[in-house]
Order: sequence, then C-alpha cells, then structure tokens
Amino acid sequence: MTTHLAVDVGGTQLRAACYPSDSLTPSKINKVSTQFANSSPLERLVALISSLFPEDDRVSAIGVAAPGPVNPYQGIIYTAPNIPGWENLPLGPYLEETFGVPVLLGNDANLAALGEWRFGAGQGHHHLIYVTVSTGIGTGVIVEDRLLLGVNGLAAELGHVTVMLDGPLCGCGQRGHLEAVASGTAIAHWVEQELAEGIPSTLPGHQKLTAREVAQAAKQGDKLAIAALARAGTFLGHALADFLHAFNPSIIIVGGGVSRSGDLLMKPIHDCLKERVISPHYLDDLILTTSSLRDEAGLLGALALARSLKA
Amino acid sequence: MTTHLAVDVGGTQLRAACYPSDSLTPSKINKVSTQFANSSPLERLVALISSLFPEDDRVSAIGVAAPGPVNPYQGIIYTAPNIPGWENLPLGPYLEETFGVPVLLGNDANLAALGEWRFGAGQGHHHLIYVTVSTGIGTGVIVEDRLLLGVNGLAAELGHVTVMLDGPLCGCGQRGHLEAVASGTAIAHWVEQELAEGIPSTLPGHQKLTAREVAQAAKQGDKLAIAALARAGTFLGHALADFLHAFNPSIIIVGGGVSRSGDLLMKPIHDCLKERVISPHYLDDLILTTSSLRDEAGLLGALALARSLKA
Repeated sequence: MTTHLAVDVGGTQLRAACYPSDSLTPSKINKVSTQFANSSPLERLVALISSLFPEDDRVSAIGVAAPGPVNPYQGIIYTAPNIPGWENLPLGPYLEETFGVPVLLGNDANLAALGEWRFGAGQGHHHLIYVTVSTGIGTGVIVEDRLLLGVNGLAAELGHVTVMLDGPLCGCGQRGHLEAVASGTAIAHWVEQELAEGIPSTLPGHQKLTAREVAQAAKQGDKLAIAALARAGTFLGHALADFLHAFNPSIIIVGGGVSRSGDLLMKPIHDCLKERVISPHYLDDLILTTSSLRDEAGLLGALALARSLKA
Repeated sequence: MTTHLAVDVGGTQLRAACYPSDSLTPSKINKVSTQFANSSPLERLVALISSLFPEDDRVSAIGVAAPGPVNPYQGIIYTAPNIPGWENLPLGPYLEETFGVPVLLGNDANLAALGEWRFGAGQGHHHLIYVTVSTGIGTGVIVEDRLLLGVNGLAAELGHVTVMLDGPLCGCGQRGHLEAVASGTAIAHWVEQELAEGIPSTLPGHQKLTAREVAQAAKQGDKLAIAALARAGTFLGHALADFLHAFNPSIIIVGGGVSRSGDLLMKPIHDCLKERVISPHYLDDLILTTSSLRDEAGLLGALALARSLKA
C-alpha cells in the first residue's frame, strides 16, 4: 500500500487530501484559508500537509496544484496571483526538504486537465483541451497522452491568446485576451456596462455583479444575462476554433463555475466552432463537454501527477 | 546500405530525391511540373518517383510532403489547394501499392518543421515552432521531440488562427486569419491598396504586385514597402506571442520567401514578442531565427519522416 497526498493551492483556500493507492476517495481531506492573521500562506500550507501526513510515514509523493505560471521541472512558482510574496518561490524543493518525500508541482489548470484525462471526462482520449472559465480562464492541453508543458513549463496558457486586438484590459496587463472578454469577471463587467447604458434587465444596476448572479438571472430568462453568456460563449468558440486548428484534439472539456450555465454557454461555443473550423474534419471525432470532476479536478490532477512518479 | 526517397509535392512543381543512408546529399534529384497537358498530377508523380527508384531496389521507405490538410496516419490527402481533383486521395496507400515499399505522408509545413528540427536550425531543441511565410502561411510544431499532429493529423495549422476579428478574407474562406494579413499574398495586396489610395512609393500602382517585388523595394529603402513588411511582422509577432503562450518553445524558425527580407520582417516580430508576452520567462531560452534549410526544408523533412520508420 502506498499513499499519495494531493494539494490544491488557491488564493482563497488551501485544500489537501490523502489518497490510499488505487482509490479516488480520500482517507483524509482538509482545507484552510490561504491568508490569515499571524501566519504566512507557506506556514499554513505546511501545517495543512502535516495534519494529513499519515503517522506510519508511507507517503510515496505529494502532488501540488498551484495558481499562476510555475516551472514544474524545478518546482518553482514564478508568481501566484492573489498570494502576496509568492514570487520565484521554490515550493517543490522546500516541501521536499520539509517532508522528506518527492514533491511534484504543476499549474492548477494543467493539473485539472490531467485530472479530467486520467479520472474524468477525458479518459481514453489522447488529445485533449481543458478550459476552466471562472474568475479567470485557465487551460491545460494533453498531447499524445502527455501534459503539454513546453521548455519551461509555461505552455497551454490559452486564456492569454488575443481574440480582440486592442480589446479590454486583461488581468495580465495586456489587452484583448480571451480571459479579458470571456471569463466570469469579464461577463459580469460587460453586464454592468450594459446596465449603465440603460439596457433593461432583472439585474440591478449601479453595483458590482458576479458571474454567478448573471448565470442565475440567465437561467430565469433574463435576456441581458443570456446575451452575456452567449457573448462569452462566442468568444470562447472563436478561440477554441483556433485551438482546434492548433491541437486537433478529440475532446474539449469546459470546466469552472461559468460552465455550470450549461447550454447557455455551451451552445454558442458549439455553434461558433461549427462556423469557424477550416475543415469539417476537425469536428469528425470531437466531443465538446463539461467537466465531470468539477471542483475536484485540481485536487485529482495533483493526485494524478503524484501517482505519475515512477517508484 | 539503405536508401530513402523524399518527395515534395507542390501545386506548381513535384520534386523528388534519393538519399543514401546517413547522407543529406541526394544521389539523384529530379523535378517536373505538377500540371501539364495529357497527364494527371498523380501519373506525373508516379513517373517522377520511378525515374529515381534505384534499380537494385533497396528503398527502405518513401517520405512525401504534401500541401493542404492531410491525414498522416492513413496517408490521405484531404484537399490539396492548387491540385484539382485531389480530394480525399489515399496517396500513401496508392504509392505503397505501386512501389511495394512503406510510404509515409505528411503536411508540407509539418515536415519542413521536422526537417529543420532534425537537420537544420532546430537541431537539439525539444520544443520548436516553424512558420513559413510565402504565398500562404504554413506552420509545424515539435513538442517533446515529436511532431504535433493531433487526433487526425490536422494540428499545427497556425496560419488559420484569427488575429483580426472580421478582418480580410482568408484563402480558407474565413476572415481575419494570420494568413490573410501576413502572408506574401496579403503583403502584396495591402501595398496595392495603399498605392490605390495614393500613398507614394517606387512601386507601380494599378497592377498586380508580388511579395518579392515588395521585398526588393523595401531593401532599396521604399517606405511603403518597408511598412508593409513591418505590418506583416507585427501581425506575425502578435500571433507568435499567442503561440509562445500555447507552446512555450525554445526556438521559433521563420522560413518561406518572405523571411528572406531578414530584419525588415524579423525585427518587428521580435519587438512585438517582447511587448506581448505575459511573462518574460517565455523569452528566457527563446531563439528567434530564420530557416537554415530554406527551399530544402520540405524535401529534407520528407527524408526525416522516411528515416523515422523503424526497420
């Protein structure tokens, strides 16, 4: 019997779980806030992992899903948006030294893709694109049964491809990226702007909205909210058509909170893909679906990464 | 001693060469026009290969670089732009039956990438992007020492990513693709339009121009021609920044006739990449360079493919 630990590092929450071999049901699972008075996120992460560490000490490896650009080969977090101070942090080596077991680190969206491929909607596919649409847009790509990483592990950042030259400002500082027009943040912001221009809606004007509120209104038939999801879906479709031309996958999996709007988001994506592919053969074997692991994709991806380590 | 045949199928010309083992110098090389009265392109191709086939019959494999979307797993040419009648043509199986040796088929830009990686500017790199800028824009990508093919072999069609929503019409029928704004054809067309609007230049108005004429004028200091190459370079830079985010390669190789304009094209690409990457780490280990195999990239790529067949 070997045990693996999986850790999902977020700006708001740190989650960790302990998995017995061959099981996807954790024997222990725990979570804490990432930021809290009097202890650093790194101290809180070490305490969290310690709380799960089995006493008989048979952990084979720890897999860690981390936000932002990471170097998975060296276990370095280049920057972690929303975790102040995490710049060029050698988290992998630090945790290896602390716990005395191998630690494998990956970008959270990459590992969500790995999780869906290994345990979720992407099982059996050799070429896969995973897109998570929530506050931002994260992506992961499987090419020939392997995670696409690139020379420094920075590949598959498809949220930062340009879909609208000189378009809205993106969180990264550039303009017109997919994330800047189709993320949950962008959806809510677009609705706020439309409301300010007097477009009728059941949603309240003159206040901050969330993508969840927009999605709820859309489900209840609000036309502006439906249009907002359709607009985001169309931009996603534009970008995903480009990604079909780039990767020719057999499955696209859409995850993240916004994907729970179902057809209100997925149908515009599908329609746009059909319209934009340069050859119908790109759609021959293509499945377009939503995430099956949902909120567990990151944690199970970290588990898949930990289990990928050869004994 | 084993011999490999390499074939480069173009809309204008068919080229083939016979390579002794371990040599990049062909023992025989020949070319014919693709289209000519009284014989079909396929008949002409078979005759060309026959003319090179060694009499002692020790050919290990034939590698074929073909234009347009192909299915390399099945040896099928889906469509070959500029070769009428080549639709869903099982060229690989047909040549295998005709010559009784294994035939491996690939998209010409993919094989040019393979050629540069195996024998040219990309040697030693594990993650590579090749872009050829000529009449159209073709691309090939190496991921972890393997050609990126996707589930049907249609991956790496980066000339058909959208860089300008609702932009100019592309050869594929869609709008705003990279090829529609940065290919040799697009460069010449943009100059024609500017001339028609009265922009001063040494280039003649009211007539069809070629990218080669624009490049020559640019080398002689013509401001409009220089601006045309800079504009194409900037669009290429935009798209290549997206491709850095997608693939995180250690080398980008630019080939094709337009790349011979050197810095007039390459500097705008480089400047745009520097401006557009979301993290400087994408440039840490990046080489941006022009093709070293030039016109031989396709043929040597077909050779690399033929030699990749395990005995």
